[in-house]
Amino acid sequence: MSMRILTLALACLLPVLVSADEAAPAPTTAEVLAQAKPEEWQRIADDKLLVMRVGGSQILIELAADFAPAHVANLQALARGHYFDGLAIMRVQENYVVQWGDPAEDEGKRRSLGAASGKLPAEFDRAWGELPFARLPDPDAYAAQTGFSRGFPVGRDAAGERGWLLHCYAMLGAGRGDAADSSNASELYVVIGHSPRHLDRNITLLGRVIEGLDALTVLPRGTGPLGFYEKPEQHVAIDSIRLASELPAAERPRRERLSTESASFARLIEARRFRRESWFVHPVGHVEVCNVPLPVRAVTD
Amino acid sequence: MSMRILTLALACLLPVLVSADEAAPAPTTAEVLAQAKPEEWQRIADDKLLVMRVGGSQILIELAADFAPAHVANLQALARGHYFDGLAIMRVQENYVVQWGDPAEDEGKRRSLGAASGKLPAEFDRAWGELPFARLPDPDAYAAQTGFSRGFPVGRDAAGERGWLLHCYAMLGAGRGDAADSSNASELYVVIGHSPRHLDRNITLLGRVIEGLDALTVLPRGTGPLGFYEKPEQHVAIDSIRLASELPAAERPRRERLSTESASFARLIEARRFRRESWFVHPVGHVEVCNVPLPVRAVTD
Repeated sequence: MSMRILTLALACLLPVLVSADEAAPAPTTAEVLAQAKPEEWQRIADDKLLVMRVGGSQILIELAADFAPAHVANLQALARGHYFDGLAIMRVQENYVVQWGDPAEDEGKRRSLGAASGKLPAEFDRAWGELPFARLPDPDAYAAQTGFSRGFPVGRDAAGERGWLLHCYAMLGAGRGDAADSSNASELYVVIGHSPRHLDRNITLLGRVIEGLDALTVLPRGTGPLGFYEKPEQHVAIDSIRLASELPAAERPRRERLSTESASFARLIEARRFRRESWFVHPVGHVEVCNVPLPVRAVTD
Repeated sequence: MSMRILTLALACLLPVLVSADEAAPAPTTAEVLAQAKPEEWQRIADDKLLVMRVGGSQILIELAADFAPAHVANLQALARGHYFDGLAIMRVQENYVVQWGDPAEDEGKRRSLGAASGKLPAEFDRAWGELPFARLPDPDAYAAQTGFSRGFPVGRDAAGERGWLLHCYAMLGAGRGDAADSSNASELYVVIGHSPRHLDRNITLLGRVIEGLDALTVLPRGTGPLGFYEKPEQHVAIDSIRLASELPAAERPRRERLSTESASFARLIEARRFRRESWFVHPVGHVEVCNVPLPVRAVTD
């Protein structure tokens, strides 16, 4: 216990010590990205890239198989079976979430999950094991440790033994009922407000919107409880959700992201902690995990 | 210096100690609000309540005269002079801000500020003095102390000597150029994404949207740099911005908020830190300042 307290205390003091060093040179975000080496950008695998089409817009989602393997596999099966095509966005709650699934309230009328499973284990956290961890030095209100792993924002306990994805803006979650294991990825939500971190470890996160989220954030807010649309005619139709790997090569989006394990990403964190852009009067000296950008770009080749 | 370190360390340890007490009973948010006494609700003064009308929607903003007295006085003068009527929203940046002002780029064509001043001091922070402070026990990435004062989220230095408003979702700020003192409240922005706390103490905040923000968050994102609209015809016209005190009594919105100095608000904080709603599997044990709701309701009398 005393060891744990010491670790926490040091984590809390670190930013104070570091911010005394504010005069040290740090690059700007633009400089870091311009200087990143080609090999520091990682191609997002086609079978981990979900392509959602709504009203002519394209939303791209990276799946987090390291953190929610059963939910990701089920979502891949649902996408392969074209499960979501013609289903609907039913909930848009201001400063919270956009949520979609099967609007049929009657159990008997609900669409078949096809090859996907109706019952999955909750995947709220995992044993950390051998996953990489790019740790942030600044304190966090919710988790003993925060940082990034393989492109996603993560939290860990003080011992670093268990870890979990964080409810940052743009994260994708699997809606559930009161039972912890009642999600199966057939009902999904994306965070569109100040990060509701109290949901961490209470519901399974399984991915992140990496492009096109504005097609969802501009949708009218629902006027029913929890932001649900009150009338079926208000539902927003989903044209399709596909894995990039299932699309014809000519239609397949190809994206890469800056590796969160790279030296450039470590520099990016420092660029966000100490703002060198001339506009900043106070260089900040800190950063919170959901305020670190995760750069993504189209593959050029 | 050693005293300062001790204070920080204690602040960081507190949540660990408190979360060991997870079995203690705490109310839910709904219970707190149902039990709040009438005198714990505070009427928002008519001359501190800004009424913005855009496309038939009404957005209500409470002004923070305790933290930005010069900017609030100037904004009051601008509203009294109907300065904003017919001006425009020119910038909507995804996961960041909505911003409005005078779209005329040519200095000579810009609208007169009337009785308002063109030049104000920067009001990034203030000596804390006698202001009340409802402090949160959980650590924060950016500020040594966080909490609430007279209805607004605030941060303070470790000594509690200086304090400032925080860039939480829905906060209203005064746009500025590179010079720290180049804002005068004629160009305004509202936060519509994950709270960009790196802006704290870099720009003057002067209020908070307390109702109707969804009329702004659904606006199309600008496709130019920083989310500016690229064409004048994309600008969203502002019908009017008025002080409630200037409106005819029959049109005047009347709102009250739960006092952040009340016992019920202290209970609300605990209700958000320890989630008792049956849905929660993990009761959280912490809360971050921008995730504490600031309840507002229509005055019923």
